[in-house]
Order: sequence, then C-alpha cells, then structure tokens
Amino acid sequence: MKENARIEAFSDGVFAIAITLLILELKVPPHDSVHSVADLWKGLINLWPSYFAFLLSFGIILVSWVNHHYLFNVLDKSSRPFLYANGFLLLTITFMPFPTALLAEYIGTDYMKPAVVFYCFGGVVNSIGWNLVIHTVFKPKLLLHHTVNIDVLDSTKRSVRLGFIVYAFSTVLAFWFPVAALIINLLLWIVWITLSINVKD
Amino acid sequence: MKENARIEAFSDGVFAIAITLLILELKVPPHDSVHSVADLWKGLINLWPSYFAFLLSFGIILVSWVNHHYLFNVLDKSSRPFLYANGFLLLTITFMPFPTALLAEYIGTDYMKPAVVFYCFGGVVNSIGWNLVIHTVFKPKLLLHHTVNIDVLDSTKRSVRLGFIVYAFSTVLAFWFPVAALIINLLLWIVWITLSINVKD
Amino acid sequence: MKENARIEAFSDGVFAIAITLLILELKVPPHDSVHSVADLWKGLINLWPSYFAFLLSFGIILVSWVNHHYLFNVLDKSSRPFLYANGFLLLTITFMPFPTALLAEYIGTDYMKPAVVFYCFGGVVNSIGWNLVIHTVFKPKLLLHHTVNIDVLDSTKRSVRLGFIVYAFSTVLAFWFPVAALIINLLLWIVWITLSINVKD
Amino acid sequence: MKENARIEAFSDGVFAIAITLLILELKVPPHDSVHSVADLWKGLINLWPSYFAFLLSFGIILVSWVNHHYLFNVLDKSSRPFLYANGFLLLTITFMPFPTALLAEYIGTDYMKPAVVFYCFGGVVNSIGWNLVIHTVFKPKLLLHHTVNIDVLDSTKRSVRLGFIVYAFSTVLAFWFPVAALIINLLLWIVWITLSINVKD
Repeated sequence: MKENARIEAFSDGVFAIAITLLILELKVPPHDSVHSVADLWKGLINLWPSYFAFLLSFGIILVSWVNHHYLFNVLDKSSRPFLYANGFLLLTITFMPFPTALLAEYIGTDYMKPAVVFYCFGGVVNSIGWNLVIHTVFKPKLLLHHTVNIDVLDSTKRSVRLGFIVYAFSTVLAFWFPVAALIINLLLWIVWITLSINVKD
Repeated sequence: MKENARIEAFSDGVFAIAITLLILELKVPPHDSVHSVADLWKGLINLWPSYFAFLLSFGIILVSWVNHHYLFNVLDKSSRPFLYANGFLLLTITFMPFPTALLAEYIGTDYMKPAVVFYCFGGVVNSIGWNLVIHTVFKPKLLLHHTVNIDVLDSTKRSVRLGFIVYAFSTVLAFWFPVAALIINLLLWIVWITLSINVKD
Repeated sequence: MKENARIEAFSDGVFAIAITLLILELKVPPHDSVHSVADLWKGLINLWPSYFAFLLSFGIILVSWVNHHYLFNVLDKSSRPFLYANGFLLLTITFMPFPTALLAEYIGTDYMKPAVVFYCFGGVVNSIGWNLVIHTVFKPKLLLHHTVNIDVLDSTKRSVRLGFIVYAFSTVLAFWFPVAALIINLLLWIVWITLSINVKD
Repeated sequence: MKENARIEAFSDGVFAIAITLLILELKVPPHDSVHSVADLWKGLINLWPSYFAFLLSFGIILVSWVNHHYLFNVLDKSSRPFLYANGFLLLTITFMPFPTALLAEYIGTDYMKPAVVFYCFGGVVNSIGWNLVIHTVFKPKLLLHHTVNIDVLDSTKRSVRLGFIVYAFSTVLAFWFPVAALIINLLLWIVWITLSINVKD
C-alpha cells in the first residue's frame, strides 16, 4: 500500500490542480466596458458560457477522481506500465482547462462546432487513458488485493467502455449538432454521478 | 481512516491551490503608468481593493479548511453521497478566485453593488455546500467514530446554519448597502476565528 | 502525529504551489519584438531581473519549507492558535509571487526603491508569521514531544529573530540603497542554507 | 520513512503543479481572428507548436517523477544536503513551464535556435540537479535501506549521466541544427520510458 500511496498523492495533486485551474478561465467583465450597474449585471450574465464550461469540466474531473479513488482502493501494488498508463490518464486530465476555455469562448457563437468537436474528442482521449489503466491493472501482473472479487472491477470496465462509446459518438455528432453533443456530455455526467451514488461499496 | 485519508488529501490540495491562486489577481502596477518613484508608491497604494479582497477571501478559505480539518477528525468512513457533497463544497471553494477578482475590480467604484451581491451570494452557495456535507455525515449511514458524542457536531451545525443566514442576509443587504454587507462579511470571518480559537478540542 | 499530518499536507501544498507559481511571472519575449535570432538572445538576456527575482524568492520559500519541515518533526500535537499562526505564515508565503513580480518589473529601473522596500517588508511580515508560530508552540500549551529537549528549538528561535531584524533593517535601508538591501537578502538566503546544512539532526 | 514522507509529499506537489501549469501556455485562438468555422479549425491546427511543447515537457516531468518515486523507495533517511539537492532539482522542474512556453512561441519560426538551445540547456541544468541528488544519497551518510543492493542505484546513476551527456550534446547541436536537437530530446524521452518499463523492480 505504501508504494501506491505516493502514486495516489501525485495523482490527487494533478486532479486537484487541474480542477482548480478551471476557474482561471472565468474573466471578470473588464472595467472599461462597464458604464452602469446594469452593464455589470449584464456582463456577469453574459459569462454563462464560462459558467457552463466550468461546471461541465468540474463535474467530469470530479467523477474521474471519485472513480480513481475507488480503483486504487482495490489495488495492491503497481507496475511501471501501470504508472505510465496512469501518467497518460493524468495527461488527459491536465489538458482539460484548454478545451474548457475553448468551449467557453465559442459556445453560442456561429463557430461553436470545432470547439464542441474538440471538447468531445478530449473525452475520447480521456476514455482511452482509462481503458489503458484498466488494461494494465490486469496485465502483466494482477494488481488486486487477493481478497477482492474480480467482478467488482467489471462495473468500472463497463462504465469505461460506455464512456468511450458515448464520447466517440458525440464527437461525430458535434460536426452537425453541437448542442445535442453537449447535452449528451452533461447527461453522461449526471448519469455517472447518479449511478455511482447507488453503488454499494 | 485510510479511506478518508485520500479524500482529505484531495480536499487539502483543492483548498491549498484555491487559496494560493488568489494572489494571481494582484497585478503589478504596469511600467508605462509609472513615471516617478511617487507614481509607483501611489500605484501600490491604489491596489488596496485587491489587498482587501485577497485578505477577505484568504480568511474565508482558511477558516473553511480549519473546520474541514476538524470535521474529518471525527469521521470514520465515507459514502458516495458524502463524496459528492464534499465535491460540491470544493466546487464553491475553487470558485472563490472569481468573485474575489470581481470584488477587487469594482469595490470603491460606482458599480460595486453587483460585485458585492455576487460575492455574498458565493458565500450562500458555500454555506449550502457545508449544509450538504453535514447532512450526508448523518445520512444514509452514520459516518462518525463510535466514540464520538454526536453533540460534538452540534457546534459545527450551528455555525454552518449561522453562515447561511448571515450570507443570505448580506446578499440582500448588498443591493442597497454594499459597504455594510462587506463589513458583515469581515466581521463573520473575525467572529469565526475568535470563536474557534476558544473551542476546547 | 495523525493530527499534524494533515496540517503538514495542507502547508506543503501551499508551499509547493507558491514556489511553482513564481514561474508564471517569467514572460516569453513577445514575438512582435523579435526580428532576428540576435533579438531573441537579447530578449532572453534582458529577462535577468525576472531570473534574479525568481531565484531569490525560490530560495526564500525553499528555506522556509525546510525549517517548517524540521519544526513539525518535533511537534506532537496542535492547537487552534497554532493553526491560525500557521495560517498567517502561509498567507505570507502565498503572497510572495506578488512582490517577486514587482521586483522583476522594476529592478534596475529608476523606480526600483518602492519595489525593493515592498519586497523587504514582505520579509518582515513573513518573520512576524514565524515568530507567531514559534510563540504558539509554547503557549497556551506545549506542543512538543516529551522527549524533545526544549533547547533544540532555540536555534530556530534565534534564526527567526535574526530574520526579523535583518529584514526590518533592509526595509529601511532600501529607501536609500535598494541594491545593498537586495544583496543583504541574497546573503541571508545563502547564510541560512549554509548554516542549516551543518546542523546535526 | 516518516521523515522522507513529507519530502516526498512536497516534491509530489511541485511535480504535480509544474506538470499541470504547462497547460496555461496553450492559448485559445482569439475570437477576433476567427471569421468562419474553417478559421477556428485552422487556428486549432496552428497551435501544433504548443501541443508539441506541451507533450514533450509533460513527458520529461512524468519520467522525472517516476524516477524520483523509485529513488525514494530505496531511501531510508534524509540529510540537509540531500534536502537542498532535492530543492535544486525541484527548482529545475518548476522552471520547465518557461522554456516550454518559449519553445511553443518560436518553434517553426526563423528564430527558433535560441529557443531550442535554451530548452536543451534546461535539460542540462535538470541533469545537474539529478547528479547532485544521487551524489548526496551516498555522501555524507548512506541513505539507503540496509537491505538494498547498492548495484540497484547504478542504473539510475548511469541514466542520470546519460541524460547529462545527451542534453549537453543537444544544447551544442541546437546552435546549428535545432530540429535535430529536438528530435534527440523526444527520442531520449521515449527511450527512458521504454527502458524503465522493462526494469524489474
């Protein structure tokens, strides 16, 4: 457990920083565009794409962290392939503030399609990271506690595969219907939280 | 305890980063506005809204962290609802740098009302996060050490409810008297520190 | 020890973030000011005030962290006054990126005096934080391991008092001789590292 | 182990933050340069120097962290010289976002040479940090577990020396052939991961 403790600490750091950096993309309405109290209220309301992007990405990173937390609870040791798969997963997490800022900038404009495609594709890459992590847990050596029923990981496996399919589908969908793709992203986030709240640990 | 150790580590990371990011909103007086030593002194003094906003938010996050620390000391296990309630609380903490920057930009100007309303409302949402956390500690299963007298949490419960009422009141007050609302915020911060220093652990 | 573990984790997070945020103040020479390879070399060399400020502040935060680390090694428990004194110390650490950026902007210009005074004054406030922490270790209750000889803390006490005197002196000095004040800051940093390397633990 | 636990935590924090801050250098294509969906696609593709710099530096920091992790696994205690050598190593890690941003700005332009030289030189300084850390592990007192075969560290020593030589060579090479120097950097990164995956722990 000691060995994995530090991997958890490093991963927690990356999750915590990536989730906190999201806020930097929210920009205060600039002073020279505000000429009345009403202007500032309007400026704050016009930031809704930023609030939406912030909430969406916060939810995704938070769900990722909760799953990461439960995965490590059943791990016994680690391996270098696992370390690098985890590193790749963290890469996709640290990348999140960029598509988030992209989405915040272009959602609701005529040019939102590339932004939504890019955002959903980020979800695809993140799913690949999760699949690699799950793969290295089983190979080359079993990382689980001997007392763990291997079926326990099956729900993780299924939700990881579901994530990949949903993100790949919404990436393609976003070329034509970006708003629909975003709604699917939001639904996935809510479904994941709802499902995982009912898991019996 | 092991299970909660990682939730604490992740939460600590988020608290530590949010409290440290506050400094990024303090901007050095730009070189081209400075034509004498006196100009730079003036520039540094004119940053008082930023210093004030920095100190106010630093205090709020620090008090939140101290309370979080003492709450976890009496917890024995966690549950998924608790994890998500804690996640929502962390959301309100990572959000802090934005209303802080907003306050720093508009305090002392003719347009400060929306900024102060927004800031106080951030306190309301943070209080809701705290109430959710406390709620999930008791339901659906009791997460406390068996040796803990449940009355111990009553002071936390009371101060969480107090926070909600005070922030809700000051949000409304800020529509007419923003300066008074800010003073209440500052007082609340000082009261919380003073009270908690005298708690016997 | 468990109780202090989390205070250490939170403090470590703040130290680690403050020390890493220093780099954000180093700005890449802007593309439109570069018209030849020689221009870019010159641009990189002209950043020396930023490199200097980065190194100086990095050293100060690192020495602070090393001392913090050794102080916690001899602590047994904590108290709320200690928690808030530590919080105040962390406040002065998170504040560091601002005077660092100020120094980087104005060192070597005609207007450097306020920047250096401000920077040294930051050192004074940091010393006050350290004095408060040391004070709360002894009062209202002794937080040390029973096996620790109280004299052990005397060297920490002395160096904390030395820091206060040197920073206060260099703050005053900077009004007339800012370069001399900076050299003293740099020397203090080197003296502290040299001294502490020879401490027998 | 307790003593080193906190050094690991602080180091992990610095690694995690430095690796996450890299993303801040990726800038969303500005709204006023985008007049069609095709413009935004082009803008996202034109960011390839930023993606490349991000990936290259992410890989370097990740490999550094993995090595750091394995080094600490065989350490038993620490010393102040070791603490400061580790501090110097962390200095070179926190510095990474700057050469990364420099590379992202100038790669592919006529002025890329200074940027690549600077980036490779950062690798040289990082290697010096690693050499200092390894040196202080053996002197003044042995930090290894008594059960560790000292030969275990020989591979770390060799790869640290290899890193120094390769980075020094590519720094010189970059004055004439910057693209070749960058390819060597990328190869080194891939070689290190490949080698370390096959290490038997």
